Amino acid sequence: MSAGLTKGQETRQRIIAEAAAIFNQRGYEGCSIQAIMDATGLEKGGIYRHFESKEELAAEAFDYTWEAAWNARMLQVDEKSTGIARLKQLIANFVDHRSPVAGGCPVLNTAIDSDDGNPLLRARVSQALHEWVSRLQSIAKQAKKQGELDSAVDPKTVATLIVASLEGALMISRLERTDDALRRIQQHLNQYLDSAALQTG
Amino acid sequence: MSAGLTKGQETRQRIIAEAAAIFNQRGYEGCSIQAIMDATGLEKGGIYRHFESKEELAAEAFDYTWEAAWNARMLQVDEKSTGIARLKQLIANFVDHRSPVAGGCPVLNTAIDSDDGNPLLRARVSQALHEWVSRLQSIAKQAKKQGELDSAVDPKTVATLIVASLEGALMISRLERTDDALRRIQQHLNQYLDSAALQTG
Repeated sequence: MSAGLTKGQETRQRIIAEAAAIFNQRGYEGCSIQAIMDATGLEKGGIYRHFESKEELAAEAFDYTWEAAWNARMLQVDEKSTGIARLKQLIANFVDHRSPVAGGCPVLNTAIDSDDGNPLLRARVSQALHEWVSRLQSIAKQAKKQGELDSAVDPKTVATLIVASLEGALMISRLERTDDALRRIQQHLNQYLDSAALQTG
Repeated sequence: MSAGLTKGQETRQRIIAEAAAIFNQRGYEGCSIQAIMDATGLEKGGIYRHFESKEELAAEAFDYTWEAAWNARMLQVDEKSTGIARLKQLIANFVDHRSPVAGGCPVLNTAIDSDDGNPLLRARVSQALHEWVSRLQSIAKQAKKQGELDSAVDPKTVATLIVASLEGALMISRLERTDDALRRIQQHLNQYLDSAALQTG
């Protein structure tokens, strides 16, 4: 992981990794520099030697958390032979695999945290959301082209439905401390995909 | 509105109303006492005469914001003659009527803000979410009993689907600064309700 990194780059990476979970759990305002100092064992100057500002550190931490979440969501997806199976795998990954960085979905957390301010973070999370929706949309589009999904199905609506309902269900599940909402949404989405597929038969 | 309130109670209500939008936009940590002092024109002591702590003020502000959102979501709902029409009206209200308190849905904002801490706020938002899901569930249950919705439909799943997908779509729409995601979800939910209704015919 750290092959080829200078000691300075390694320290920078370590700060990002430690800060990621704190930002993701407590939000931008709730993540104090003191908490990052405590987690890394570094002094304030030792942290700010590597980052121009708290905004820059938060943006790098977001990218780190998003990459971890993305990797968890993409597990085994490309191994599936149909678009519908790929979409179902993505849904199952979201429901079953918590990202290794604590605090829930970084897109949801950071969107809520930055939608009324913090333009640098807002740009990063907008980009991440765009990637996430686009990936699903492109799978749905391909599935439609190959006759798996009904021609009346709109790939962007499928992608938006999956992202919106999973993110909303995650909010409910984290608040209720049970995965009931996520399971219900998974069931609905799978049935929806089956019904959109069935009509082509 | 202020009939029968003492001057102290009036001031307390005014602080809650001013603080509500600040908490809803900036989150608990992002809402400084200075910002509330600026908004109300009161000194710190003048604010804390009415509240034991920032936690208490945030909890009261949440209840205020939630009541405003709830009222916007319930507009014209009881005038509808069928359960399905009531559910569609609730969905349309969510999509078309922004709550009068700026910053988006208080349940979503406060859930994300408090799911890793702040037990007092967490309890308030859990209660609000429970009310919101229960109200939808009870309409769906009634619609099922009256033969409007297919007997295979699970009222709690309908309620969870509506809440999760609308909340997720609101997150996307606020981030993208367009209501495209909300409109797509509204269309999906309306079609879903129609298909769940149709099967009874």
